[in-house]
Amino acid sequence: MMRTHEAGTLRAEHAGQTVTLTGWVARRRDHGGVIFIDLRDASGVAQVVFREGEMAERAHRLRAEFCVRIVGTVARRPEGNENPEIATGDIEVTATELDVLSEAAPLPFPLDEHLTVGEEVRLRHRYLDLRRSGPARALRMRSEANRVAREVLHERGFVEVETPTMTRSTPEGARDFLVPARLQPGCWYALPQSPQLFKQLLMVAGMERYYQIARCYRDEDFRADRQPEFTQLDIEMSFVEQDDVMELGERIVGALWRELAGHEIDGPIRRISYAEAMAKYGSDKPDLRFGLELTELTEYFKDTPFRVFQAPYVGAVVMPGGASQPRKQLDAWQEWAKQRGAKGLAYVLVNSDGTLGGPVAKNLSEAEREGLAKAAGAEPGDCVFFAAGEAREARALLGAARLEIAQRCGLVDENAWSFVWVVDFPMFEKDDEGGWTALHHPFTSPTSEWVDRFEQAPDQALAWAYDLVCNGNEIGGGSIRIHRGDVQERVFSLLGIGEREARDKFGFLLDAFKYGPPPHGGIAFGWDRICMLLAGADSLRDVIAFPKTGGGFDPLTGAPAPITEQQRKEAGVDAKPATAQAPLELPKHAQPTHQV
Amino acid sequence: MMRTHEAGTLRAEHAGQTVTLTGWVARRRDHGGVIFIDLRDASGVAQVVFREGEMAERAHRLRAEFCVRIVGTVARRPEGNENPEIATGDIEVTATELDVLSEAAPLPFPLDEHLTVGEEVRLRHRYLDLRRSGPARALRMRSEANRVAREVLHERGFVEVETPTMTRSTPEGARDFLVPARLQPGCWYALPQSPQLFKQLLMVAGMERYYQIARCYRDEDFRADRQPEFTQLDIEMSFVEQDDVMELGERIVGALWRELAGHEIDGPIRRISYAEAMAKYGSDKPDLRFGLELTELTEYFKDTPFRVFQAPYVGAVVMPGGASQPRKQLDAWQEWAKQRGAKGLAYVLVNSDGTLGGPVAKNLSEAEREGLAKAAGAEPGDCVFFAAGEAREARALLGAARLEIAQRCGLVDENAWSFVWVVDFPMFEKDDEGGWTALHHPFTSPTSEWVDRFEQAPDQALAWAYDLVCNGNEIGGGSIRIHRGDVQERVFSLLGIGEREARDKFGFLLDAFKYGPPPHGGIAFGWDRICMLLAGADSLRDVIAFPKTGGGFDPLTGAPAPITEQQRKEAGVDAKPATAQAPLELPKHAQPTHQV
Repeated sequence: MMRTHEAGTLRAEHAGQTVTLTGWVARRRDHGGVIFIDLRDASGVAQVVFREGEMAERAHRLRAEFCVRIVGTVARRPEGNENPEIATGDIEVTATELDVLSEAAPLPFPLDEHLTVGEEVRLRHRYLDLRRSGPARALRMRSEANRVAREVLHERGFVEVETPTMTRSTPEGARDFLVPARLQPGCWYALPQSPQLFKQLLMVAGMERYYQIARCYRDEDFRADRQPEFTQLDIEMSFVEQDDVMELGERIVGALWRELAGHEIDGPIRRISYAEAMAKYGSDKPDLRFGLELTELTEYFKDTPFRVFQAPYVGAVVMPGGASQPRKQLDAWQEWAKQRGAKGLAYVLVNSDGTLGGPVAKNLSEAEREGLAKAAGAEPGDCVFFAAGEAREARALLGAARLEIAQRCGLVDENAWSFVWVVDFPMFEKDDEGGWTALHHPFTSPTSEWVDRFEQAPDQALAWAYDLVCNGNEIGGGSIRIHRGDVQERVFSLLGIGEREARDKFGFLLDAFKYGPPPHGGIAFGWDRICMLLAGADSLRDVIAFPKTGGGFDPLTGAPAPITEQQRKEAGVDAKPATAQAPLELPKHAQPTHQV
Repeated sequence: MMRTHEAGTLRAEHAGQTVTLTGWVARRRDHGGVIFIDLRDASGVAQVVFREGEMAERAHRLRAEFCVRIVGTVARRPEGNENPEIATGDIEVTATELDVLSEAAPLPFPLDEHLTVGEEVRLRHRYLDLRRSGPARALRMRSEANRVAREVLHERGFVEVETPTMTRSTPEGARDFLVPARLQPGCWYALPQSPQLFKQLLMVAGMERYYQIARCYRDEDFRADRQPEFTQLDIEMSFVEQDDVMELGERIVGALWRELAGHEIDGPIRRISYAEAMAKYGSDKPDLRFGLELTELTEYFKDTPFRVFQAPYVGAVVMPGGASQPRKQLDAWQEWAKQRGAKGLAYVLVNSDGTLGGPVAKNLSEAEREGLAKAAGAEPGDCVFFAAGEAREARALLGAARLEIAQRCGLVDENAWSFVWVVDFPMFEKDDEGGWTALHHPFTSPTSEWVDRFEQAPDQALAWAYDLVCNGNEIGGGSIRIHRGDVQERVFSLLGIGEREARDKFGFLLDAFKYGPPPHGGIAFGWDRICMLLAGADSLRDVIAFPKTGGGFDPLTGAPAPITEQQRKEAGVDAKPATAQAPLELPKHAQPTHQV
């Protein structure tokens, strides 16, 4: 090692020792002829002093972020000069030797904790950004999160298995990233959207307890805070029921928050049904750090003269103290609603005397006006927002309004952690063409109440599926899978997935399920998101070493980039598959002619 | 949980208890009206008995690999019926309930330990193959290997960091796998051949101690036992010297072999120089489980009348007892050599009376014949093989012959573990066009003796590079990297990498190195190979859950496969990059127009 000590570990008891330190010049100060530098390494910072004479002379050329090696003597700082802010504040190192290991050009931005520079610049120079203590701490915390989760899983006898990342294209909802196969020109691999099919195969294989911190790939239109490659903690178990998977999930999340956020989750995490979450919070990932439940008023307005409220669903959410909002702000709410695709956001102001204000009030019957505040749970001084229409859309709008109200009214305790399981998910939802689509994925098992009759009421059939929500973020989700071939076939049939399509997409899984598949289920945690929450970060990019920005662009390497003609030719991108058959069939030429 | 106990954990002390087990029917035997099955789960096997009557009736329909749930009572086996071969051999479970959880179709091959079926069939049904105890054990062992290595690294304060797998094409020797970028049509990502550049960036970032069990991708022509995607344990450290990295490497390997192979590596692993390895063993990954060193006879034959031996290098290796090989076998050696691209393999037989036989002997001078056995280290009864020509090729042939001899003569102790570090690698080797190419990679640092003058004798210049070899397998390799910009430029210059090419390939790394890069170095372990050795397996495929076979084909999923026209169109495969500039420049259009 080029050093004897790490800078951040020096304490008063080292006084008198000669030490060799390595690190970066975080700050340089000249006091008369004496030069002080803050020497930073991964462990922290120590003050190094170059006293007058030759050493000070040489230290004079040190600039920010020069990488140096220093030999010196540890001394207690003079009385009154201690710095209680830093762990090494009692000491300083008087330098007797200085090697500049490498110099640094002028920095593109100062390495302060509070940067004003844009993210693009930070990420293009991520190797400098990560020298800042905040970003570095986020990556170190992520490493610890891996360790804590693995410890829980190891105790429980889980086996870590790597699954392939160059595999067959099996569209699961999003687009696959594709990779041309040079050795089989015209054929392509796909990067997996998740290890879903492989982990189910591992259950068929009798592995019983599988996990992997797995890279996943989805070629989506990049929405805010999505990455084309992302990481999940992926888990699958055999011979389990829903409660078993949830118990394990709580154990992992409990350990993570205990060890990395200093937060003890009390008792089992509460559960609410999907139906309740939608009805009360207008969301399947409700933020329960505050109340503000939605009120359904469909019944209340069943004979209303107000045309807008003559709808299959009418609901409301209350903004405490919202009656005093200036007109401009109430107009802004309309804009806000329109940006979410709604026509507007009807509202009623509850005046301090109990009368109602705002344009909607006069359209209501007197009886409706009379009881409205009580029905909506509003007090004098509050504003009641309404949405009317199809329950799904109206609730989504109210749910979004609820979050917005909480922000504006400061109802969110930023130090609180609120966990909730959302359970009893519907198996199916209507798709745009009036058919049915799987709410989770087509391998999700109906509950025992529905397994024999989900076709009779697909809109009501429930699945053994569960999402874990933290502060309004979905941090994990999973399900018990279908392990019976007949049930899987019936689900495919309801989803309009024909036998041929099923064989093409999932043929190898269906084949595997012919050979005694065990009952099994699992869960996947959104690892980037969990680490983001644990790090107290605002963006997934803060917990990814080299993240991509909008459009999947990497500001550091400049990827993606054009390729050369030769690369294109070699990759076989333009070759026709050797056989003329439709891509639905497994290509015969893809069979290897020999074993190596 | 659907079970109360795991089958393999039942012991005599459970006698009298009612248990619920789940698992697979490994074997069924009928004894009169009584039916015995071996019930297998991940923990092992237990014998379940269905006594006469209804239970036996129902058990009658059980077939191999049915997945079942059984309730029964644990009982000691009748005296004399114990089976000491299995951990549960003292007990049996008398079934009182039987649920068939799922049935199994007739198996494509019996799940015996000793299969005669071809690998292709096994891998197509990998989910059945992995129910066999050998293959399952290999995957479980691999999971443990991950854990053991991480434990060592965690103790030493290493940070696990995930690096991107969709990145910029930076050819490092092999071809990159490419991924079209739909959102930037005409641009492509590349899958990384290793995290090399990113781990060096992390050192610039001050991370100091990095590791990752990293997936790597190389689009090579599939040689035996190569996988297009493979795994390495990737490590990088700052402020270290070669010995520090090697010490850590030994610690990891020591822990792996101690915990997983029951083998204690005594003391520090021995080191030999590249030059010595080539001279004595004709290989930079010598198998030291046996001797059979090569002898150089260039000097001995310096005045030889035999034209073949008038060469820049003549060397020999002895086959003990080889003089008694029949003519046919000696001819086979010629074939063997020709398959390796040699003209043949000259040999001399040392007869029991000390005279020499074989066609070469008569071409030698009498003095040469006289002293040859002694010079080559041969005893009467031995065969001496020769190779003459350029040292490099001749030694490689002798090195291969050495391995072949050891195999044929049974000189390899299959239970031995022989580790060796190969050090003092040359920095450069001549390429086919007479230029220089980096033996490791162009970031490898010259030793301090050579750093200021490697241009003066590129053929002699040594690098701080090290390979770890186990039983003739390279299981790890690394180097101290260049951290000085001027040295890197001189190396690029010697390698004929122009400024423009360097900027294109490694521009972002060179940029990073302007900002105080620390001295650093690292190592990467071939994780598949290490696990293969620890598992005692013959093939890398045995320690990969879902491996590919020849040509990168996955027999299970059928990947790679043709894609649809729509997929092709969406992926933007056929789009021209938006700007006409050469791919050498970072495309301007690839800058995102907005931050999300």
